Amino acid sequence: MAKKPLNIGLVGYGFMGRTHSNAFLQAPRFFDLPYQPVLKAVCARNPERARTFAANWGYESIETDWRALIAREDIDLIDIASPNDTHAEIAIAAAKAGKTVMCEKPLGRTAAEGKGMLDAIEAAGVPNMVWYNYRRVPALVLLKQLLDEGRFGRIFHYRSQFLQDWTISSDLPQGGEGLWRLDASVAGSGVTGDLLAHNIDMALWLNGKITEVSAMTETFIKERKHTLTGKVEAVSIDDASSFIGRFENGSTALFEATRYARGHKALFTLEINGETASARWDLHDLHRLEFFDYRDEGRLRGWKSIHITDGDHPYMKNWWVPGLQIGYEHTFVHQVADFLIAVGEGKAAAPTFADGLACDYVTDAVLHSARTRQWTSALGA
Amino acid sequence: MAKKPLNIGLVGYGFMGRTHSNAFLQAPRFFDLPYQPVLKAVCARNPERARTFAANWGYESIETDWRALIAREDIDLIDIASPNDTHAEIAIAAAKAGKTVMCEKPLGRTAAEGKGMLDAIEAAGVPNMVWYNYRRVPALVLLKQLLDEGRFGRIFHYRSQFLQDWTISSDLPQGGEGLWRLDASVAGSGVTGDLLAHNIDMALWLNGKITEVSAMTETFIKERKHTLTGKVEAVSIDDASSFIGRFENGSTALFEATRYARGHKALFTLEINGETASARWDLHDLHRLEFFDYRDEGRLRGWKSIHITDGDHPYMKNWWVPGLQIGYEHTFVHQVADFLIAVGEGKAAAPTFADGLACDYVTDAVLHSARTRQWTSALGA
Amino acid sequence: MAKKPLNIGLVGYGFMGRTHSNAFLQAPRFFDLPYQPVLKAVCARNPERARTFAANWGYESIETDWRALIAREDIDLIDIASPNDTHAEIAIAAAKAGKTVMCEKPLGRTAAEGKGMLDAIEAAGVPNMVWYNYRRVPALVLLKQLLDEGRFGRIFHYRSQFLQDWTISSDLPQGGEGLWRLDASVAGSGVTGDLLAHNIDMALWLNGKITEVSAMTETFIKERKHTLTGKVEAVSIDDASSFIGRFENGSTALFEATRYARGHKALFTLEINGETASARWDLHDLHRLEFFDYRDEGRLRGWKSIHITDGDHPYMKNWWVPGLQIGYEHTFVHQVADFLIAVGEGKAAAPTFADGLACDYVTDAVLHSARTRQWTSALGA
Amino acid sequence: MAKKPLNIGLVGYGFMGRTHSNAFLQAPRFFDLPYQPVLKAVCARNPERARTFAANWGYESIETDWRALIAREDIDLIDIASPNDTHAEIAIAAAKAGKTVMCEKPLGRTAAEGKGMLDAIEAAGVPNMVWYNYRRVPALVLLKQLLDEGRFGRIFHYRSQFLQDWTISSDLPQGGEGLWRLDASVAGSGVTGDLLAHNIDMALWLNGKITEVSAMTETFIKERKHTLTGKVEAVSIDDASSFIGRFENGSTALFEATRYARGHKALFTLEINGETASARWDLHDLHRLEFFDYRDEGRLRGWKSIHITDGDHPYMKNWWVPGLQIGYEHTFVHQVADFLIAVGEGKAAAPTFADGLACDYVTDAVLHSARTRQWTSALGA
Repeated sequence: MAKKPLNIGLVGYGFMGRTHSNAFLQAPRFFDLPYQPVLKAVCARNPERARTFAANWGYESIETDWRALIAREDIDLIDIASPNDTHAEIAIAAAKAGKTVMCEKPLGRTAAEGKGMLDAIEAAGVPNMVWYNYRRVPALVLLKQLLDEGRFGRIFHYRSQFLQDWTISSDLPQGGEGLWRLDASVAGSGVTGDLLAHNIDMALWLNGKITEVSAMTETFIKERKHTLTGKVEAVSIDDASSFIGRFENGSTALFEATRYARGHKALFTLEINGETASARWDLHDLHRLEFFDYRDEGRLRGWKSIHITDGDHPYMKNWWVPGLQIGYEHTFVHQVADFLIAVGEGKAAAPTFADGLACDYVTDAVLHSARTRQWTSALGA
Repeated sequence: MAKKPLNIGLVGYGFMGRTHSNAFLQAPRFFDLPYQPVLKAVCARNPERARTFAANWGYESIETDWRALIAREDIDLIDIASPNDTHAEIAIAAAKAGKTVMCEKPLGRTAAEGKGMLDAIEAAGVPNMVWYNYRRVPALVLLKQLLDEGRFGRIFHYRSQFLQDWTISSDLPQGGEGLWRLDASVAGSGVTGDLLAHNIDMALWLNGKITEVSAMTETFIKERKHTLTGKVEAVSIDDASSFIGRFENGSTALFEATRYARGHKALFTLEINGETASARWDLHDLHRLEFFDYRDEGRLRGWKSIHITDGDHPYMKNWWVPGLQIGYEHTFVHQVADFLIAVGEGKAAAPTFADGLACDYVTDAVLHSARTRQWTSALGA
Repeated sequence: MAKKPLNIGLVGYGFMGRTHSNAFLQAPRFFDLPYQPVLKAVCARNPERARTFAANWGYESIETDWRALIAREDIDLIDIASPNDTHAEIAIAAAKAGKTVMCEKPLGRTAAEGKGMLDAIEAAGVPNMVWYNYRRVPALVLLKQLLDEGRFGRIFHYRSQFLQDWTISSDLPQGGEGLWRLDASVAGSGVTGDLLAHNIDMALWLNGKITEVSAMTETFIKERKHTLTGKVEAVSIDDASSFIGRFENGSTALFEATRYARGHKALFTLEINGETASARWDLHDLHRLEFFDYRDEGRLRGWKSIHITDGDHPYMKNWWVPGLQIGYEHTFVHQVADFLIAVGEGKAAAPTFADGLACDYVTDAVLHSARTRQWTSALGA
Repeated sequence: MAKKPLNIGLVGYGFMGRTHSNAFLQAPRFFDLPYQPVLKAVCARNPERARTFAANWGYESIETDWRALIAREDIDLIDIASPNDTHAEIAIAAAKAGKTVMCEKPLGRTAAEGKGMLDAIEAAGVPNMVWYNYRRVPALVLLKQLLDEGRFGRIFHYRSQFLQDWTISSDLPQGGEGLWRLDASVAGSGVTGDLLAHNIDMALWLNGKITEVSAMTETFIKERKHTLTGKVEAVSIDDASSFIGRFENGSTALFEATRYARGHKALFTLEINGETASARWDLHDLHRLEFFDYRDEGRLRGWKSIHITDGDHPYMKNWWVPGLQIGYEHTFVHQVADFLIAVGEGKAAAPTFADGLACDYVTDAVLHSARTRQWTSALGA
């Protein structure tokens, strides 16, 4: 009952800073955890913004230099929610300082960067996690259980998409505040690292290693005004990215991510086809799992829409009552809960930095294949 | 292989004349039947229209007086597809002449009319059927099988709707060619006899007798120009009709039919909730049955959408290959097939005139309850 | 920025105690509010449970007698989340003590009880609200806006259901901890006050007054063991409740609530059909609104599924980014936000106690009609 | 009114022989055509089967050698519905004999074969068509109209799948009666020519030329008993086939066909994303078109499900009344109707043999790319 406090130092105050902060606040109210997260400090270069953010979320203090944050003795956990080009430096410094590290995805802008981060974490031996939050969607945890139970038999196909449409307008500038995802020097890549990385991490978890890919990327709008320079500049990111490929288990891969699929806001989809069962899911109705079981009586076979809101569904007995759905933010709450429980038990909680690096290897392979127009190994070094 | 010819005499050339003719032509091509329907004659008052219809569908001859049609010795079966106010007279005469009789639904404009028709049929001892075609939707035949197998346990609820929107405009005239369904003197009633009768017949078949109803009808547009008189006249039909009620098996009833449900063209729906299973279906996707089985493993319970296109689904091995849907017209084809097979075996094929009368009793009760604002028995005489 | 504290005293610690507490905590983090809710005290007869609840949610203190809670000068707002039979007494006392009062629905077990509560509130002139939380579903707020803009034209039909299946087992006991909803002496009625009240409140808000009803209730399982007495006793509640009826605007009503609809956990549905548009919604996918607009180009008319997750949808700019859904609990957060803003502006925030009483009048009429088998006015005194 | 007879000689009596025969019979009953198809003769090697087929469908005579059929002066049109390895020889001979030729898809087993067929048709100057029947799905004809009207703006993405699951069992033999689709020497390829060809033909029609592909094929079950030899032999076909690629209009391609997608019987899907609109469709609900229009009012944007059963939808005024769906077989009926009208007007009716060859070029490129693991041009010679 008397929980140990765990002092959080957050870097970043954007979209992900908000989801993480909410998760730290909500997790102990809905889950029985060995630690009580304490929102100790938030760090942002702009002190005004840091203060506003701290006041809203209840952070006790602010910092404007992440080095100062890491140097504080009253901080146990560094949570990195700042743009991708800061992940490596902060994570490595935090690990060296012996802090527990949580890092927003993708791990590095490249696998090389990610490798450096993993090495630092392993050298320091500190608990670590990458925020691939979709691994905590209750429907997908159920799917993982069904796969682990062997209900699907041999797997033939795995396909996954992430479809958005928010960058279609050529008036949208690139770079700067809130738009760094359109600048490859900051983000590492376009949709490959931003969206496709989610598809890949989920696939690696559910269906195992991807061995090779043949990929294609496309930049539909070639020039945009850059917010920081004020000039029209060549667009450096990929607007769309897709690949065919193979998994180690013999199944085929078909993946696609884009910000040019008109009508889709955040349509992360996946489908897996096995010998005896199939399943599919999408983020626009994340509280449902579609399941087909070939072992059902013949004339009654069909796709079942399972409303994942019952007490026997993953995480759901901790929320409300059957029939009442949870949403996007809850995946982060689950991630905090699982991480703190694992830390309390001295265990690793996936996705670790090692998992993050495995994903970086695949995104690197996708970008390499697209550049070279060759099939490329996705297994990394 | 050498099939006996069965000579058809059709009365009426409208929408139902077309569906019936198509069914007589298609049934023997897809089903192995003891009779070969022969399109001997079509009857309509207007000889021009009769001739055009005959040429299109391959009828060998025409008549302009149904009495002449019935008098013909080369006619075995009288098929009544003319407006409701002609059903009784023609059916009774045909029965007296010893003809097999198929009659478009509803049987009579009132139960009294229907009773006269049933009496004549029974006195003559001729094969007979009412074209409640939806009993031959493969998905609903499967549902009937599941109910008969006892998979639902005790039934708690049955609800059904028929939603259309084609009469909302006040510019639409009433009565006359193609619009007789808006004239109660011809049709008997509005949506109660036209649409709700389908809901009721299906319910009686699937869930047994309805014992009592409390009903309400509404006429939203009170006056319309009458096509035959050219004058604006009071509208005599009900535009909407709904009731609550009870089935003999203890389950509750909730029914509604309307032509004022904007956005729905022919949305016949039904749902049945039992102790151990539930099912629902609608006409806009008639090739699907939604099924929920409580005996499924707890965390995997859900509504299954069964695509009724497989060889082990009712009627479907006679059509194409799995996954390829059939449509509305096929229900009539199945009805012809089932009827001819039953006749060949000397058996009755539901829905018979007796079934048609049972439905008339309920529609009479609905109209009576709506008029008197009292709960009314629906069991008939 | 310097928000006034608003001290909350919560009565009850069950399902609704949790949703309300969460709402008070979350609202100020996502919405800019004039008050900062402070969780001052939670009241429950069992001090152990009160303490556990307080520790989890951060209440500063506990009380075991609601009279003591009301007597405290440091409490500004009494929030009633205890069983229905306590609503009236607590609300009246709180009003007399000059407290702001929020009361879980239904207002009273009967309209008579509700009337006493409204009188007390009006005499005291204190801010008040009933927690009909579904009025704050973003999709339904959008629907309300569309209706207010006149997009539907004349309304023809309104229908609504609330389908559950959690009481089908005859092994389920009645009464006592967590099961008081099955005891009419505590709850007032069964599904009529528990579920149908939600359908009715929503309808009154969206479509105006219901003038008369013809209703039916059913108790499928007649006897259950009573948890408090340990004996098998007659079941006092209605398991299912349905009615046909009329709205003041001339449209027809079709309503149903049940806990015996196998396969549905909390399927609150509604559909409204107007001359020029229709809409439907259900709680199992609460983040979607289905909309049909007859003014669309003819060949392109259809039901549009609007994913209510965009910045221009009600409340949604305060949450995450487009495409990411919120869930059930957020409706309570919105309710707190709207209420505090209204209180800050000295305005009433619907649903007020007056709205709660209007709903009680209709549920009373439903129960009366079911008992007497007569059409009954639903307009109240 | 007095229609010219058009004498049909059908080769083949399998699944496609049935769909074609039905189409020739039904087309003139529902469409006003310049020709009356006459079922003159059906040709099959097995005279018994030919006679049974002829009796069922009303063919006046039979032949057991297609050369004899082509030699008959009373045959106007040769319809090829026999296995793929017979297409070229029969079509070339029929063209040389001056017959009108309809050929089941794919045109040739290879583009080389297809090219020979096109050359023969062009040399003879005879009317010709390939039975890519899905071009006559009303929903897809509507989509084509919307594209031609410029409603989608610049196209970014086109993706399409054909998912089946009927060959998953390793007990299924290959080759011979009804199973020739599993023998590459007869079929040309596996799913690439059988299923993916449908996806490709549709894409070429809707979205223009495909310039290059990177493809992958897979044979999951490597050996099967061959029906003709009785021995276990290596499987020669591709079980699954997928590719990424580019269209000439700058949009990306993502295609997949398989017979190993458990739970899908004939799930042909397509989606197209343009700057201002998107659409999707699938064969399991072929009577619906999903449409998203970005020009809709912002807060009301969504995917609209258009029920393609209204009089202003392509072909539908010739069928029943609004709301009543047609099915798979009707696409063939429409194809006959369109072809006969075009022939009557002396015009070509797509898909012609030239269109069939364009599709063969792409399937050839897919197979070549899969073999060589190289990006391959899909534009043909």
